Amino acid sequence: MTSPSKYLDALIREFSKLPGIGPKSASRLAFHILKLREEETEKLASSIIELRKNIRSCGICGGISDSDTCAVCRSDTRDRGLLCVVQEQKDAIIIENTGGYNGLYHILHGVLSPLDGIGPEDLTIASLIDRCRDGMVREVIIATNPTVEGDATALYISRALGEINPAPEVMRIAHGLPLGSDLEFADSATLLRSIQARTKVR
Amino acid sequence: MTSPSKYLDALIREFSKLPGIGPKSASRLAFHILKLREEETEKLASSIIELRKNIRSCGICGGISDSDTCAVCRSDTRDRGLLCVVQEQKDAIIIENTGGYNGLYHILHGVLSPLDGIGPEDLTIASLIDRCRDGMVREVIIATNPTVEGDATALYISRALGEINPAPEVMRIAHGLPLGSDLEFADSATLLRSIQARTKVR
Repeated sequence: MTSPSKYLDALIREFSKLPGIGPKSASRLAFHILKLREEETEKLASSIIELRKNIRSCGICGGISDSDTCAVCRSDTRDRGLLCVVQEQKDAIIIENTGGYNGLYHILHGVLSPLDGIGPEDLTIASLIDRCRDGMVREVIIATNPTVEGDATALYISRALGEINPAPEVMRIAHGLPLGSDLEFADSATLLRSIQARTKVR
Repeated sequence: MTSPSKYLDALIREFSKLPGIGPKSASRLAFHILKLREEETEKLASSIIELRKNIRSCGICGGISDSDTCAVCRSDTRDRGLLCVVQEQKDAIIIENTGGYNGLYHILHGVLSPLDGIGPEDLTIASLIDRCRDGMVREVIIATNPTVEGDATALYISRALGEINPAPEVMRIAHGLPLGSDLEFADSATLLRSIQARTKVR
């Protein structure tokens, strides 16, 4: 035996495919599953199946949803003139969890990346432009990550939205030193950006 | 929305229950599941169910097995006079993977721990003694972890086996500096043990 059970091997192999789970973690997880009660393992397994089976894509923002339109897009207390563009669903959740944003979202499902063959048609940029065409959206906040691809995507979207008439105002989230951080530990690119993008002391 | 889907929430909750998976990892795993093809998620889910449903306990060594007797206990090329006692199934797998051990195993399923209320009757010590009663086992190697509980369990087993007639020889795996390590980085308890348990240079 390298392993005493082919069922154990199979589960370790499946767990190893998940991101951030190496062979050792996969093995630990599989041994944990062995110790669970049968209804607990069934709950885990059915959660996996149910998620995959029931999840839909919101027809407006492109985010995930349990129904055809997600709760944010359906809500009538949100500011419909404000749109936050994010790379992935999880970014929208993170922003939502700050509790300070009351607009809508638009999920790109990636960023422009010519090296990986990802162009504008692979993202939801066309539907973003469509959403802005009726003049209801007064401001678009682009919250892609501060990487080369994220910045290039922001620039591309900003230009595309500029061609609409009337064009919404296109903004980028601020980049600089994180709150509570220390100049000593900042990388020089961030520090330089925080100096270039300095704001007036009020 | 804190989360846009109750199915997503449910899976994140289930993943969070697994050892070493915090809320952030659970969320990353759940988002990964979203991106998988349906047959991949079904494979993962069914592996979990199948493992739990099909795994059995070997009637001889107490280890996990796909049948009533595990492959090692069934094998006729193994040395049946040599028994290695380990805390958990995974320890047997680790020893097996060294490729240098050809005896049988006995899985204790824990160690004596009075503070946690774990006594000899909670482990498979009685069946270990039974296995040694017919005089076929000439040597028992106790490979519990070098902790207070592991050492105490080794001592307890050694005494219990000493009362059998004829008693098998009871050995403890060697403890000392790991191969390739450096004295500078050894903890003093290990270093002291390696001096006390010094062996003759051959």
